[in-house]
This record gives sequence, structure tokens and C-alpha cells, in this order.
Amino acid sequence: MKVLVVGANGQIGQKLIELLQNSSKHEVRAMVRKEEQAAAFKEKDVDAVIADLEGGVNQLKDALYGCDAVVFTAGSGGHTGADKTLLIDLDGAVKTVEAAEQVGVKRFIMVSALQANNRENWNNSIRPYYAAKHYADRAVEQSSLIYTIIRPGGLLNDAGTGKIEAGEKLERGTIPREDVAAVIYESLDTARAFHRSFDLITGEKSISEALNAI
Amino acid sequence: MKVLVVGANGQIGQKLIELLQNSSKHEVRAMVRKEEQAAAFKEKDVDAVIADLEGGVNQLKDALYGCDAVVFTAGSGGHTGADKTLLIDLDGAVKTVEAAEQVGVKRFIMVSALQANNRENWNNSIRPYYAAKHYADRAVEQSSLIYTIIRPGGLLNDAGTGKIEAGEKLERGTIPREDVAAVIYESLDTARAFHRSFDLITGEKSISEALNAI
Repeated sequence: MKVLVVGANGQIGQKLIELLQNSSKHEVRAMVRKEEQAAAFKEKDVDAVIADLEGGVNQLKDALYGCDAVVFTAGSGGHTGADKTLLIDLDGAVKTVEAAEQVGVKRFIMVSALQANNRENWNNSIRPYYAAKHYADRAVEQSSLIYTIIRPGGLLNDAGTGKIEAGEKLERGTIPREDVAAVIYESLDTARAFHRSFDLITGEKSISEALNAI
Repeated sequence: MKVLVVGANGQIGQKLIELLQNSSKHEVRAMVRKEEQAAAFKEKDVDAVIADLEGGVNQLKDALYGCDAVVFTAGSGGHTGADKTLLIDLDGAVKTVEAAEQVGVKRFIMVSALQANNRENWNNSIRPYYAAKHYADRAVEQSSLIYTIIRPGGLLNDAGTGKIEAGEKLERGTIPREDVAAVIYESLDTARAFHRSFDLITGEKSISEALNAI
């Protein structure tokens, strides 16, 4: 598969790009906002495209042409202003869904947040961020795409452990970004993950074992 | 009909409450956030209930029991912080939709904003507000309710003229809040407005004439 990574310059995005670049079964395209970010990827032999999530659906369609899958891992993690949260985490995500539908890119992986699906479990210190993720996820689920919504717990910069827990409703926990990237990578062609949404934290199982048990 | 007005203390809300209170065919209940706001309505013989749009769906269900219709006219007009925009204009609105569905209140009128349905026509100075209204409106349209989405242009405090233009896609314009309240009132039992969304500005037609031409 050729995979467009939206939010390629983010921390999860960069790790995912590396996995995809080193993969024999996939190709990757990095979507970034700035010329210098694209240049940095191209220097590393990564196909890169410039598009703005605050722009129109058409430039996202252009970015998606020729791809088979898209991973949406753009966004702030809750610490930019809520105005950008509305325009990027919510509207930018939904525009990406619409672009994928219009171009015919069927496979869509969304990086969300633990329990974004349950209002009563939203993290109170960043409720507006959770609201944006919640409605973006709803749009993904209502789309015609073969989606997977991954809802990681608190993101760490620690090295990945390769051991995870994945499930409909997990208690709060954490997970290294490296492991999130690995779960995205593994989910791409794991049929068990199609049309599924799940929480993700560090646990006891290998990634393929955990994905096949969701 | 007994009509719950969500955002009763707002400027459109207050005008609508007055119309409903003076109506022989409707009854009204004001939903407000604060004890003193409820007391003020009760002093004017208006049934009032306290509920918080940032709270759970259950308190909205309690507010809705016994009503036949709900008008959502809460919100900031775009000048509160985007965090509140996400939690009230978007999530609060969708929770009201869910509460109405769960309680069996079928008629729902949403006060939106001119061209909130078309991203390319959003008012650039308040795009995050438009995004919130856009996704709230989508949820209304996807609900099982008999909705009307009214998308007024720039709101004025001028006296109403009773002359409006209503349509799928109008150029930017303005309209007195008093006329918006009158259009809501008239829409409540105008079958032509059921399952319809329309822009609203000052125009040449009487309200019933305009509504029956949408």
C-alpha cells in the first residue's frame, strides 16, 4: 500500500514514516504544511507533499491521489488554542475523510485519544480537545471508508516496548509514541482492525496478538 | 406545543420567550444556567428550568420532559473563547439533540449562522465558531428529529420589520434579532419548514410567505 501520513512532521508521524520507509510491503508519502518540512523529508528519500488542513478539500485530494491508505495523526495533543483544535483536529480531519472518499482512498486510520468516544471519560483538563476528537471520530465512523480509530492513552517519548493492551474501554494509562506508530503500521493491513475503534495503552500482549483479540 | 427554549437568557431567546408567552397556541419553558436567571423568568410567570449545556445529557433530558419542541438558541455568536464554542455551540447542541431523541421530543429548531453549511462561505474572522455550528447542524440533520435549521445573517438589535428573505444560499446580509425570534415562532408549526435548513436575512416578504416559499 502507498500510505499518506497526515501530520508527518509530528512525533508519531515521524516514527510511522520511518517504519513505512523501511517496509518492503508499503510505500509512504508525507503530508506537511511547510516547504522546509517537505524538503527535509525529500532529503531522506521520502515522498512529500505540501497541503494545509485549514485549506480546501481539493488540496487534500491532490495530496491523496495515488495513495491506498491515509493515516491522520495531525493535531496538537490538546495544547494549542481551541480555535486551531476546531479547525484542524475537527474540520481538518473531516475534510481529510471527505477527500479520501472523493478520491477513492478506502483505508483510513485515525489517531484519536483514549475514551474520546465516551463524554463521561473525557480528560477534564482538555475537554474542548476531546470534543473535537469525538466529533472527528464520529465523522470517520459515519464515512464510507474502511476505518480504524486508535485511541491511545497519555503519549510518552520513552522507547517502545512492543507490548500493548487494546480494547473498547480501558482505564487511563500511557503508551510510548513509538508503540502507537507500530500499532498504526500493523493495523494497516490487519483485517481484524477494519471498522474498529479501540483504546490503546501499554500492556502485556504483542501488537499482532492484541489486534487480533479486539 | 410546549416549547423549551435553550439559551432563554440570550437576546433572541428572550424575544422568543415573549412571543411564546403571549401565544394562545403554545406554552413555553425557559432553560437557563443560573438560579437568578430562572427566578427572573418565574417572576414574569414563565416556567423555567436550570440546566448546564456543559453537563450530562441526563440533566437536559430532565429539562425536556413534558415538552413537544425545543429551540436551541444558546451560544456566543462567536465572541467567547473557542473552548466554550466547542463545549457549548457544538457538544452542548449535540447533547440537546440526543436528549430530545431519548425523551421523544420530536420538533427541534436550531439557530445557526448564515452559510454555516458551506465551508467556503464561512466568515473568516470567526471560522472556529462556524466550524462548531457546521458540525452541530450536521448532527441535527442526521438525527431522527423533525428539525428546522435557521441560519441568520448578521444579528441586529434594531426593531423587527417582519420582512424577510429565506433561502438555501443567500448573500451576506443582516436581520434584527426580533425577526429571527418571529421566524422561529412561525416555523414551529409550519410543515413546510420541517426537515429544512435555510439562510435568513431581512428581505421583502412576510414571514409566512417566505417560509412557504422555501
